[in-house]
Amino acid sequence: MIKTDILIIGAGPAGLFTVFEAGLQQLRCHIIDALPQPGGQLSEVYPKKPIYDIPGYPKILAHELVDKLLEQIAPFKPGFTLGQRAESVEKLKNGNFKIITTDGTVHEAPVIVIASGLGCFEPRKPILDNLERYEGKGVDYMVLNPNKYLQKNIVIAGGGDSALDWAIELSDIGANVTLVHRRTSFRASEHSVNEMIKRADAGKINFIAPAQVNGLLGDNQLEKVVINHKKEGELTQEVDYFLPLFGLSPKLGPIAEWGLNLDRSAIEVNPLDYSTNVEGIFAVGDSNTYPGKLKLILCGFHEAAVMIPSAFKIARPEGRISFKYTTVNGITGF
Amino acid sequence: MIKTDILIIGAGPAGLFTVFEAGLQQLRCHIIDALPQPGGQLSEVYPKKPIYDIPGYPKILAHELVDKLLEQIAPFKPGFTLGQRAESVEKLKNGNFKIITTDGTVHEAPVIVIASGLGCFEPRKPILDNLERYEGKGVDYMVLNPNKYLQKNIVIAGGGDSALDWAIELSDIGANVTLVHRRTSFRASEHSVNEMIKRADAGKINFIAPAQVNGLLGDNQLEKVVINHKKEGELTQEVDYFLPLFGLSPKLGPIAEWGLNLDRSAIEVNPLDYSTNVEGIFAVGDSNTYPGKLKLILCGFHEAAVMIPSAFKIARPEGRISFKYTTVNGITGF
Repeated sequence: MIKTDILIIGAGPAGLFTVFEAGLQQLRCHIIDALPQPGGQLSEVYPKKPIYDIPGYPKILAHELVDKLLEQIAPFKPGFTLGQRAESVEKLKNGNFKIITTDGTVHEAPVIVIASGLGCFEPRKPILDNLERYEGKGVDYMVLNPNKYLQKNIVIAGGGDSALDWAIELSDIGANVTLVHRRTSFRASEHSVNEMIKRADAGKINFIAPAQVNGLLGDNQLEKVVINHKKEGELTQEVDYFLPLFGLSPKLGPIAEWGLNLDRSAIEVNPLDYSTNVEGIFAVGDSNTYPGKLKLILCGFHEAAVMIPSAFKIARPEGRISFKYTTVNGITGF
Repeated sequence: MIKTDILIIGAGPAGLFTVFEAGLQQLRCHIIDALPQPGGQLSEVYPKKPIYDIPGYPKILAHELVDKLLEQIAPFKPGFTLGQRAESVEKLKNGNFKIITTDGTVHEAPVIVIASGLGCFEPRKPILDNLERYEGKGVDYMVLNPNKYLQKNIVIAGGGDSALDWAIELSDIGANVTLVHRRTSFRASEHSVNEMIKRADAGKINFIAPAQVNGLLGDNQLEKVVINHKKEGELTQEVDYFLPLFGLSPKLGPIAEWGLNLDRSAIEVNPLDYSTNVEGIFAVGDSNTYPGKLKLILCGFHEAAVMIPSAFKIARPEGRISFKYTTVNGITGF
């Protein structure tokens, strides 16, 4: 059994920074995340994308921010239960919470901080009979490593920012990109649309619309896709990769059953300390909601800091919190 | 006359980051600060000190953070009125505020954001007859550039963190340091006390206590200080610099007269959008207070972001705010 002061659900930026703010008050943390690595969306969804609104970083790649946060919290030695979902929560007689994860690991702590972002992400998949057969064998729902597609023939389907931005970026690094979109209009930023059209006009992106991928062919590996062009009919194209980029659909998962007040799939919190309606459970970052909430990483950082005094009172009922500026004494780890 | 969308009082980190969040909504900003350079306390009080609690920076020197923030806001071309205090504020018939600074510069905008930190800092000065005569001529109240004291004879007075930490740091870089303290106990962190005593025992810091500097000598430049040791009587010591480091005393300044609700010297705000009791005036960072307020730089960043939607409604009553993740489109400056 894993016993700690604070159990954090979610290893995204808000969850990671909670370890830091807790550590300054000598509270220990353990993080549970369904993904196999820390970083949440930043590692899983857009590791190579730049972020421009982290205060003090004019530009930082998402995975670099994760690396920096991991370095920053290292002195406080957080524990990790990764690749597992928090399934059940139970209030014990001693006042602690017990969380059991999908593989049966038992965790216990007086405080839970939910930092699960928009929840577990699942790609929106197109309806194609044999789609799952090619998953990981030519069909990818996310671009984790752009270099994988260098000099390859790829077909991207979709008309949103993700589809357009990756069509642009992968074409720019030398992939042979075909973009298939059902309509001739887009649900993407004007900038992205213009950049895509510029490349299509220059023959760098093969843009086919209005059209739809409606067949996948290949033995063990995806070899060809069948594209149905509304005017010109069916054409079959050889591919190394097919990337249906129709966005991700967030799911809160089992946390939705924990008795917390929800507003749609966000957890309602008190905006003064980000506590939920269940005493001892807090929610920070994109997982929470309150009047005026902005879903920005920098707000998750603030919420992690502001929630700690209330969490401290629960974890150390006899203790006295003391605030010290790190500039004076630096950090004292465990 | 300077006309803009948002007038920001204070060029510290919260004020600077306000320019960024405003800029994302295409609102222009102009910053007024009494100090001659941007950065607030970070530039004026502890430029060379490391900060450990900026999210994503395991360690960053205060002046480096200022440089990064200036780089981050550069696309939004903020205006600056530096070295001048905001003296008076007036509500005009057109709904705008008019601010006049100490040298008479007139500024006009529909929104004011007070990001003045703890106010204008003034050093606590010892009572010595001819102290002011030597200011800038051997008497310094702040360490702006430690290298200035290399190989010099310096006397530091004080028993708090600032006095001890600078005695340690300046001695470590090769200054010849005498530390004079009225008592033998300290109002400083245990760590700093231990480090100072270690150096005193090793003969690297000349620690004189209980004692007091009670005289300054020299023609145009400070040459000697007279130290009164409670047991051993008066001794005269040759010095290049005398640094009375008794801390800084914050003053809100003329803003205290603007009709804002104050709690001691902090401005009371609505914790949902950091608006003050005067419509159109907001307060972010260390200058504000609300239940659960933490005076952390990272909280100022959050407050700057969260206040913008309400500021936008006032600055662009006909406009519609739109949130876009910078990751998708980057930054569009002016």
